[in-house]
Amino acid sequence: MAEPEEITFRSHPLEEYVQMIERFHGHLAPGVLLGGFMVELAYQQLPTEGLFDAISETPTCLPDAIQLLTPCSAGNGWLQVVDSGRFALTIFEKTTGAGVRVHLDADRLTPGSQLSNWFLKLVPKAEQDKAQLIEEIVQAGSRILSFRKVHVDLAGRRQKKGVKTQICPVCRESYPRDHGPRCRHCSGERMYYRDAS
Amino acid sequence: MAEPEEITFRSHPLEEYVQMIERFHGHLAPGVLLGGFMVELAYQQLPTEGLFDAISETPTCLPDAIQLLTPCSAGNGWLQVVDSGRFALTIFEKTTGAGVRVHLDADRLTPGSQLSNWFLKLVPKAEQDKAQLIEEIVQAGSRILSFRKVHVDLAGRRQKKGVKTQICPVCRESYPRDHGPRCRHCSGERMYYRDAS
Repeated sequence: MAEPEEITFRSHPLEEYVQMIERFHGHLAPGVLLGGFMVELAYQQLPTEGLFDAISETPTCLPDAIQLLTPCSAGNGWLQVVDSGRFALTIFEKTTGAGVRVHLDADRLTPGSQLSNWFLKLVPKAEQDKAQLIEEIVQAGSRILSFRKVHVDLAGRRQKKGVKTQICPVCRESYPRDHGPRCRHCSGERMYYRDAS
Repeated sequence: MAEPEEITFRSHPLEEYVQMIERFHGHLAPGVLLGGFMVELAYQQLPTEGLFDAISETPTCLPDAIQLLTPCSAGNGWLQVVDSGRFALTIFEKTTGAGVRVHLDADRLTPGSQLSNWFLKLVPKAEQDKAQLIEEIVQAGSRILSFRKVHVDLAGRRQKKGVKTQICPVCRESYPRDHGPRCRHCSGERMYYRDAS
């Protein structure tokens, strides 16, 4: 099998990107490796100049590829997850919404391959050959990806700036005033814990 | 003013953590710096052994402190945002739900300080003294934080494993079968873009 040459992810060579994944994500996840090809393909289609935001259409794996290879992070607001459930990401110019959406094209997967079995969840994880799967991803690269130019709806995305805060009368913590008279924890809307006894 | 000594964030010295923030978050955000003190305080209260997940109660800044200082990332599923709107985070043992919640205690802020004005959004960003604000955060450290032991509701959090996928009849992309007969984009539920003309 031919050695894939000059594979880079935003100028990081493959080996370096693999190490970045292991360090940040905890292990070499196939989805984050694939995500690297997706981010790279998106940037190849974007203007070289511009300020770009990113959307991952799944909370799994792709957010980490985006965070490793772009300036967008979960906490700086430039990365957002819009969970359509699809394995796709969009990178777009933040003031115009003009961007590129990349997805994995299931029609291009070889039936019976590790990659097909993994992506379509046809085989339980314990029965997958991880090394072979990684090799197939590297060999396939962007050939299993499709992209299209899109316009992102900015009206629905702009972050609210300057929202006032106030102290919740129940928990005495600060929260955005537009959430209502109590914070979302004390109103029961986002109550994920109880005090330990 | 006394030099703060031996401030570390999960064993990273202050200067190193500042660089990590600038690299990952794009700039030295006060909220990510504060988040470092919060993560450190949480770990000081947790058992030294264990596998921990994290929850940020805000999408702003704190997710990046968690991602920089813990094994939890947005894409590996160990970090989740439960947007209560409060400046708080919880780190908890993933199998038992036993953990520690840390929040910034507004009652301990000095009225009129840069820190108080910033946190309570009393002064527009353009009028804030960023260098002084950072200095006040470093000087305050964990003294403005409170923590409590909590139990996280795991029943509401466990990720679904083994959900089958299927191809959406409209867009021909793979998506989780339990989302319904069409993917969430094609059903209109998560439609954030249109094709560029």
